[in-house]
Amino acid sequence: MDSLLPPELVEKAREVIEKNRAAGRRIAVAESCTGGLVSAALTEVAGSSEVFEAGYVTYSNQAKRSALRVNEDVFDTFGAVSVATAWAMAKGALEASGADVAVAITGIAGPEGGSPAKPVGTVVFARAERDGDPDNVVADSKLFDASGGRAGVRLQAAVCALELLTP
Amino acid sequence: MDSLLPPELVEKAREVIEKNRAAGRRIAVAESCTGGLVSAALTEVAGSSEVFEAGYVTYSNQAKRSALRVNEDVFDTFGAVSVATAWAMAKGALEASGADVAVAITGIAGPEGGSPAKPVGTVVFARAERDGDPDNVVADSKLFDASGGRAGVRLQAAVCALELLTP
Repeated sequence: MDSLLPPELVEKAREVIEKNRAAGRRIAVAESCTGGLVSAALTEVAGSSEVFEAGYVTYSNQAKRSALRVNEDVFDTFGAVSVATAWAMAKGALEASGADVAVAITGIAGPEGGSPAKPVGTVVFARAERDGDPDNVVADSKLFDASGGRAGVRLQAAVCALELLTP
Repeated sequence: MDSLLPPELVEKAREVIEKNRAAGRRIAVAESCTGGLVSAALTEVAGSSEVFEAGYVTYSNQAKRSALRVNEDVFDTFGAVSVATAWAMAKGALEASGADVAVAITGIAGPEGGSPAKPVGTVVFARAERDGDPDNVVADSKLFDASGGRAGVRLQAAVCALELLTP
């Protein structure tokens, strides 16, 4: 048995582990809609413990608050699927883990939970770096093709998160 | 695309979500060697947000300390792969998440990290419940068949963790 996850995910994860190991960077992830997939892909790679510090699967807002110290006001003002929440999650993961770089993912994998403003397939990403400029917010909202269902959205989101972790 | 993960894992996860939803229980997981697989399987199920509260992928000892408040002495005395560590992780996940039940997994997926006393395939599980008797430690050490490699050990461990979450 080689892998439990789709090959494109594990190949990306292997690249993330190898390049961050070479750069001497430890990484963390904060996952909402991907729900542990990014962490699972990274830890599928043998030797990932040298690079992967921690993953926070913060599905509920309560978990985002308690594990990542995301402020209640951020949800109230911008919603759980927003650049503000993703950025707060990434910064929270960096602080909580002591890693050098953290990526956060929050979105709507479906089939429920979409709205006209934020349809199913909307996923927001953010990356925070230990020595990064705090004014330089690296965050982006994407709308993925949702025709492949929940699994399809999650896969596209996980691949995108791994790309953000590639130095 | 139906699922990103092996069908036996997703079927077990679906059962966990359905039965815990029926029981009105919210769940959390603390994963070391499974590295997010259990969380990824649970969140693959549509509607899992009603049941799944949070996952903590605490790969390093530092992450086990900071996210789950596992005491340094536990590692020093018993090691990271021990009933004492698994139990402390499960209790920590329960406290941190506010869930009703939490399962923890810590083990040696390989190919490195084994020893004569704790060979590759050694995985320790614990379950903590909110209203459980604190003297009733539900924890168990297993030795899985490691012939299927790292992926095989991780799959067997994830299935076992899901069984512990089934009411």
